[in-house]
Amino acid sequence: MSAKLPVGILGATGIVGQRFVQMLEHHPWFEVAWLAASDRSEGRPYGEAARWKLKSAIPRAVAEMKVSSARPEGAPKIIFAALDASIAAELEPNFAAAGCAVVSNSSALRMHKHVPLVIPEVNPEHIKLLECQAWRKKSGGFVVTNPNCSAIGLVMALAPLERQFTLDTVMAVTMQAVSGAGYPGVPSLDILGNVIPYIPKEEEKMEEETLKLLGRLNGGGVAPGKFKMSAQCNRVAVEDGHTESVAVKLLKKPARPEEIIAAWNEFRSAPQELHLPSAPQQPVSYSPAADRPQPRYDVDSGGGMTATVGRLRPCPVLDWKFTVLSHNTIRGAAGAALLNAELLKVQGYLD
Amino acid sequence: MSAKLPVGILGATGIVGQRFVQMLEHHPWFEVAWLAASDRSEGRPYGEAARWKLKSAIPRAVAEMKVSSARPEGAPKIIFAALDASIAAELEPNFAAAGCAVVSNSSALRMHKHVPLVIPEVNPEHIKLLECQAWRKKSGGFVVTNPNCSAIGLVMALAPLERQFTLDTVMAVTMQAVSGAGYPGVPSLDILGNVIPYIPKEEEKMEEETLKLLGRLNGGGVAPGKFKMSAQCNRVAVEDGHTESVAVKLLKKPARPEEIIAAWNEFRSAPQELHLPSAPQQPVSYSPAADRPQPRYDVDSGGGMTATVGRLRPCPVLDWKFTVLSHNTIRGAAGAALLNAELLKVQGYLD
Amino acid sequence: MSAKLPVGILGATGIVGQRFVQMLEHHPWFEVAWLAASDRSEGRPYGEAARWKLKSAIPRAVAEMKVSSARPEGAPKIIFAALDASIAAELEPNFAAAGCAVVSNSSALRMHKHVPLVIPEVNPEHIKLLECQAWRKKSGGFVVTNPNCSAIGLVMALAPLERQFTLDTVMAVTMQAVSGAGYPGVPSLDILGNVIPYIPKEEEKMEEETLKLLGRLNGGGVAPGKFKMSAQCNRVAVEDGHTESVAVKLLKKPARPEEIIAAWNEFRSAPQELHLPSAPQQPVSYSPAADRPQPRYDVDSGGGMTATVGRLRPCPVLDWKFTVLSHNTIRGAAGAALLNAELLKVQGYLD
Amino acid sequence: MSAKLPVGILGATGIVGQRFVQMLEHHPWFEVAWLAASDRSEGRPYGEAARWKLKSAIPRAVAEMKVSSARPEGAPKIIFAALDASIAAELEPNFAAAGCAVVSNSSALRMHKHVPLVIPEVNPEHIKLLECQAWRKKSGGFVVTNPNCSAIGLVMALAPLERQFTLDTVMAVTMQAVSGAGYPGVPSLDILGNVIPYIPKEEEKMEEETLKLLGRLNGGGVAPGKFKMSAQCNRVAVEDGHTESVAVKLLKKPARPEEIIAAWNEFRSAPQELHLPSAPQQPVSYSPAADRPQPRYDVDSGGGMTATVGRLRPCPVLDWKFTVLSHNTIRGAAGAALLNAELLKVQGYLD
Repeated sequence: MSAKLPVGILGATGIVGQRFVQMLEHHPWFEVAWLAASDRSEGRPYGEAARWKLKSAIPRAVAEMKVSSARPEGAPKIIFAALDASIAAELEPNFAAAGCAVVSNSSALRMHKHVPLVIPEVNPEHIKLLECQAWRKKSGGFVVTNPNCSAIGLVMALAPLERQFTLDTVMAVTMQAVSGAGYPGVPSLDILGNVIPYIPKEEEKMEEETLKLLGRLNGGGVAPGKFKMSAQCNRVAVEDGHTESVAVKLLKKPARPEEIIAAWNEFRSAPQELHLPSAPQQPVSYSPAADRPQPRYDVDSGGGMTATVGRLRPCPVLDWKFTVLSHNTIRGAAGAALLNAELLKVQGYLD
Repeated sequence: MSAKLPVGILGATGIVGQRFVQMLEHHPWFEVAWLAASDRSEGRPYGEAARWKLKSAIPRAVAEMKVSSARPEGAPKIIFAALDASIAAELEPNFAAAGCAVVSNSSALRMHKHVPLVIPEVNPEHIKLLECQAWRKKSGGFVVTNPNCSAIGLVMALAPLERQFTLDTVMAVTMQAVSGAGYPGVPSLDILGNVIPYIPKEEEKMEEETLKLLGRLNGGGVAPGKFKMSAQCNRVAVEDGHTESVAVKLLKKPARPEEIIAAWNEFRSAPQELHLPSAPQQPVSYSPAADRPQPRYDVDSGGGMTATVGRLRPCPVLDWKFTVLSHNTIRGAAGAALLNAELLKVQGYLD
Repeated sequence: MSAKLPVGILGATGIVGQRFVQMLEHHPWFEVAWLAASDRSEGRPYGEAARWKLKSAIPRAVAEMKVSSARPEGAPKIIFAALDASIAAELEPNFAAAGCAVVSNSSALRMHKHVPLVIPEVNPEHIKLLECQAWRKKSGGFVVTNPNCSAIGLVMALAPLERQFTLDTVMAVTMQAVSGAGYPGVPSLDILGNVIPYIPKEEEKMEEETLKLLGRLNGGGVAPGKFKMSAQCNRVAVEDGHTESVAVKLLKKPARPEEIIAAWNEFRSAPQELHLPSAPQQPVSYSPAADRPQPRYDVDSGGGMTATVGRLRPCPVLDWKFTVLSHNTIRGAAGAALLNAELLKVQGYLD
Repeated sequence: MSAKLPVGILGATGIVGQRFVQMLEHHPWFEVAWLAASDRSEGRPYGEAARWKLKSAIPRAVAEMKVSSARPEGAPKIIFAALDASIAAELEPNFAAAGCAVVSNSSALRMHKHVPLVIPEVNPEHIKLLECQAWRKKSGGFVVTNPNCSAIGLVMALAPLERQFTLDTVMAVTMQAVSGAGYPGVPSLDILGNVIPYIPKEEEKMEEETLKLLGRLNGGGVAPGKFKMSAQCNRVAVEDGHTESVAVKLLKKPARPEEIIAAWNEFRSAPQELHLPSAPQQPVSYSPAADRPQPRYDVDSGGGMTATVGRLRPCPVLDWKFTVLSHNTIRGAAGAALLNAELLKVQGYLD
């Protein structure tokens, strides 16, 4: 019998659900014990129900597991959720009310006053917010979320700057990979040789989530970051990896470029100190090459958990310009939730 | 015998040189009479020397024309130049000194104090600067330039805003097509499924050219625009069409969105008033669809001479965000020079 | 009042339906008077119901037309059908039974004994088969079909060879564009940087349709062509244009390459002789360049109605190898049906 | 001091040269001790001279190694060659004459009567041919080659069929990745959204190499395979992995599909028996999925050393159709040469 904690996956057949299955295959603490998806999949073996889209093979044990109904009955206590927002809004509260620890990648509850929106390297202390949740008080269950795939790489690059230099203004323009839209997601006729300058609700999420992530716990909520933030989001013909052109203004001056680069390269936080299994050694890595980061070369850095920054140079309008890249379905989704779960575990929330 | 003015093309075998050949095929005023390229091509029929990369067929008469040596002797008086900057720096002055009207797409002389950098819709009055050129005084020859392919779409979108609302700040992030790098240009291994966040010298050109274009004639030079300007340039897997995510701050407030959109849609200038043959009816067109402009649909608008703007929305940092798209080898290169030549002609400079 | 014949489009919102709308915009004989699509679209203006995916603008008059229910009541007599096979199998007989001339691009009835499968340049005489249809006898209505998008380019290249040299064996491997799968069609995650070596039922269609097209009218049916035929079908990351690597064995020998090339270039047939409005001047064109045809350059040849052949060379196994390219949604779908309708009209079947 | 054998790489800065560096980084028997490239690179550190295009980082020790002149003086005895054919024709004989074991991926000498063209799983006994080389007799040096990247996957799929069923006829159409053309290789303007139906000399190589590989040692040469063979080669927008649509006729009949599949899956040969370090456990693997193999999922099978076959189905012309995929710069180039070197070592040719 395994000593690992059994976990369930809600929305297991989608692209992010598949990443959960893949990342959990050899996880030292957790083990997939339950999978749920839409009614259409219920009762079928996972290997049949999921159209597996990852390059590694589908883990055999999981492939043979039957897909369950998306109800808390019979589900394990720890639930990873990768649901569309509208479905998450309905299901996640049910699972939390039933006593589950819902570690969610969905956007539905991210901005809920009592729901922690957490990147373990950035704002691990926000986890505590879950104690304010009504579910927690009644059943012990709770919901913890990670940010949108476009916000996470940006915030990892911003956090060391906020710590050392205090942000005044942030402007970001994204070039986002198609896997961020799930499967079937973006039709090939829409993206081959093209750029789509619009992703529904993405800019709003990026702006508000960035401010919440870099905000401060304040009684029963989070006071958003005090800097100004603007985002523009584009879709490009890349499979995995969101690239972002960023400009920032800093309050503490002067910030020398070598100080900024050191702030990124030396940034370490709770996941590294606690040696969480999915934590990259270096959460943010600066590439000195003139033309990096690039999805082709850098997306899998740190097993897809490291954000790569490059091209730091002065900005004639704000202070500095740079480019950041992160893996949108690993660090930007499944890996983010997994790292949240690991943090919850070491803090005793999963006992 | 044709009544059209004979013109020559310097750098005729490259991608922009080919666009000149294509756009001049049925031109009412000009006619290709002379083609020059590198030594390697000299003496060969153009159809053999050029690796034709456009979708329309190579015009038969031009295909059979012999490629000449890149020297002023024997060249016609009007010369379109599509040379690499380093070669242009050497050759363009030679042709101007020999009495030629050099209408150049090259970057070499764009920022030269006495060389007009012109978009006929934006700053036609800058043409006069050519009278200050030493070549003009000695031989009658001169050099007129058009901007970089990434600057031109941006400046067309900015010009109506500058006119009506006065620009305070401009931030632009580009997603540029591979044809902007010429042929062979970007290796496929570098761009398939990738984004390259760096184009050598592109950001510098975009910033300084934008300020010169929106500057003001000031004795024997141009006083640059008074707004602040920052650019970030990326290469994406698109064939033709540079897409740009732009944010602006305006001095005159409030500017209502319908006023801004009207400023774009109603923008008309010298080329429209003078009915220049290559002038689009509408130089700037606003697309109301949520997800436009896109290279796939909008790049050929106005025969490739119209810049398409879309997605106007408030910016939490500056005032407004929008997206602009323009065809980088038509409006951004050959078509830009051709329109400059047409403006020169109606103003009597080509007599 | 227009003197044009009113036509309807079944399946008007899909990619092929859109091509019908586009190609009919300026048609001298036909005029769109009725559009039908799935229930979801019924009653909505076409411009809203269709997600327009073509580069030219949606014709204004059609954009404002209401989408009708897919029932014969109220439909015009001439119906272009661009339906999925399963729906076509149900609807097309209804329209034929109601007296309509159904000119179909759907696969449902192509192999029906009494349904003509026609390329006007190849087997115009097969049209007569419609007289055997029970619908024709009862109501005057009938169904005429055009082949699958992968068969049509191949058969256009084969027809001149069959005429002059008699085919013994044909082997074809396709590299098919994503637009052949409709919209949303192929997910971008499936095709970016990839080849998919499988298109459901495509090889079967290509093999049996090719034999029927090059077969001979035989009483109340078609005796299939007497040659052997094998197809392999692949999907590639191309927007429009199916490329096919073909090898053939000919019965009449020797066939010299210049004879074969002349057979292609000089191939003319009913549409050219009758000056049908959508007929290309040259239905098959041989490109002498070593590396052509290519989708990028050749797909729009003859307004998308010409098949381009290239690379004729000896085959060590059969006799000859060559490459053929044709536009899959113009010559391979909407244009094919339109040309069929034009042939029907001049033959008096639409009176 | 290392007990590994020092090896050199000729053409070390190209794409295949880089693969050699990558695959040798942790090799148990060999160690990079010497790198040579064109004059332009001579004397520079490898990390500077090579434009590294692989996803894994450049090995530090190699990055700091100085690039040598491409002359035998000072070179180690074992040389991997990844040169353009014209240069290889000149340099490889020099190195062999100087006593080196030249293990070459270049095409220059592949069809030379006394030069073994070897896939260790297919024709290991051909290695002996090197004893006929004049170089061998004089200096002990020799040249051994591996096939073209398009031939190798095909021949791996054919070898088990030839063994068990005897080939009569083979027809193959390739869809080849851009990395096969090296770097910069295929310009992006040529391949984005396109198929190029021509690769210079590729079809000839594929046809003659396949026959030599499946031929039989015959005194001082190789009697080519007795089957008929025809190839058509296309370039597609894929980064790594050549996909091939193949049809075969077999002499021994009937061959049942399960026998053919077993022949592939159970195919083992010298490299597996000898446990060569780069040998994949299973050189040929049959994928039962309807739509596989695909470059996206299967290219890295067996560390890039396994050829994946799929879609076995009857052919109406020959007997069987199938699809084969192999990694063109691993199994098709650097890995092929490396496996040859390993075979040479266990046979004592490198002592």
